[in-house]
Amino acid sequence: MDRNLPIGIFDSGVGGLTVYRALHERLPTERYVYLGDTARVPYGTKSLSTVERYAIENARFLVSRGIKLLVVACNTASALAVPAIRAAVPVPVVGMIGAGARAAVQAAAGSARVGVVATESTVKSGAYSKAIKALAPGTEVYERACPLFVALAEEGWAETEVARVVAEEYLGELRGLNVAALVMGCTHYPILRRVIQEAVGAGVRLIDSGEAAAAAVEALIDREGLRRTATQELRDLREAGAHARHLCDDLDHFYVTDAAERFAHVAERFLGAAPRRLEAVEVWGQDELQPR
Amino acid sequence: MDRNLPIGIFDSGVGGLTVYRALHERLPTERYVYLGDTARVPYGTKSLSTVERYAIENARFLVSRGIKLLVVACNTASALAVPAIRAAVPVPVVGMIGAGARAAVQAAAGSARVGVVATESTVKSGAYSKAIKALAPGTEVYERACPLFVALAEEGWAETEVARVVAEEYLGELRGLNVAALVMGCTHYPILRRVIQEAVGAGVRLIDSGEAAAAAVEALIDREGLRRTATQELRDLREAGAHARHLCDDLDHFYVTDAAERFAHVAERFLGAAPRRLEAVEVWGQDELQPR
Repeated sequence: MDRNLPIGIFDSGVGGLTVYRALHERLPTERYVYLGDTARVPYGTKSLSTVERYAIENARFLVSRGIKLLVVACNTASALAVPAIRAAVPVPVVGMIGAGARAAVQAAAGSARVGVVATESTVKSGAYSKAIKALAPGTEVYERACPLFVALAEEGWAETEVARVVAEEYLGELRGLNVAALVMGCTHYPILRRVIQEAVGAGVRLIDSGEAAAAAVEALIDREGLRRTATQELRDLREAGAHARHLCDDLDHFYVTDAAERFAHVAERFLGAAPRRLEAVEVWGQDELQPR
Repeated sequence: MDRNLPIGIFDSGVGGLTVYRALHERLPTERYVYLGDTARVPYGTKSLSTVERYAIENARFLVSRGIKLLVVACNTASALAVPAIRAAVPVPVVGMIGAGARAAVQAAAGSARVGVVATESTVKSGAYSKAIKALAPGTEVYERACPLFVALAEEGWAETEVARVVAEEYLGELRGLNVAALVMGCTHYPILRRVIQEAVGAGVRLIDSGEAAAAAVEALIDREGLRRTATQELRDLREAGAHARHLCDDLDHFYVTDAAERFAHVAERFLGAAPRRLEAVEVWGQDELQPR
């Protein structure tokens, strides 16, 4: 595997940008190729077989672009489709669930109760519960779907009274349950970190599954000797005519399957910057991959 | 055209059931075939070309099942794709926009201001504004996207404090604008009729685009001589072993492209009844239409 290839990231849409940001912060000398499947977003209300099909198409698209490693930024796809993705592509695959579960168990530090907020399909899969209980048997896991959080984040309402009322409705009951840590198991939820923290109380450690996965990716590339070389780094910066890497700069490439304009708009809301290289593509019918 | 064929209805998902209900109330002796494209829902944030492609696949699927008339229950597909659908299928096509616009202009009764709430893509298309101004030039049309309404309706939160706060946030400013009528231009919004009415004030006439379209469908089938015959009606009831038609009974057939269980669950929330005949199908790749 060529260690100078970029890291691939796919998500059902724009939410995975929070994972891209976490990776970029931890591994700023890597390059990234991001795919948002905006033509079929969201995955969180869809079935196992459909999410598997979409995830494999996305993974194959990124592999066709040349990547050394694939990050499944979408928690729903991570919960439902990682085995199918691993079987379909020849690169290492990192999902959100294992990393998020490990971080939660560490943060809970022996406490018997952990919470998870995620999409309907992730909760229904029980993937986080299984992963947490495998690491720390006897842990009680409280899982809750919070579908309105996605719409609130994309609307730019993260800091509003509406967000506070919604978070209280979903999470208020958690305050009585003595939960030590809460996994934000959907890419959009870290955007609402402040109101989530308020709703569950300051004593609960919030786990950003994207940050946890970024740490796992760093460990993996060091273990496998896949870190980008210093020589290549310098070449990259020269190519970009830059002195340092920045979020969404020319060295990272973004693809969407639909509505690039809306993606750029929400990206700006989430990251404070819109991708400079953003392209609409089709990822279905992998035999005839064509930019649109 | 065989007048005893069912009426086809498609929507991006479950929201079109409000249109099915309106049709069923107005034309209870007709039979209906409903397709919810739950594998690719929602359409309201997607682009023109993607919505056109999905809409044509849905329309062709329903035509392959045998229908006399097609109702595009999804407002976004109605706003973006009706010309493309008409070109693709050999049956009459009724969308939401024309009917909703006509009902709004009538209800506004000469007032210069009409409001429209709809999805992002419907608002961006300007379809309602154009249709209203074509009927009543000089009307000022105030359009607003209300993305959280869909999640609120599906969550079963229509009558909650959260819904009231969200409706106030979106629509409170309308109260000062002297709007005579407000089109609920997304299938989910009639579920929130009560909080919408509260937010805009009792003086504003709410237009349910589904009810308006049902009236248009009735006019069309009478004009074209397409009403189901009395003989066939009796046969239908005998077939069903029933004395009267009911919402979601055995005589209506429902298809979804994904997650039938979730569809049935939300249908029960919206209609008070779940479809008795509900089947998952694939509608893409029309050459090889297969039930899954």
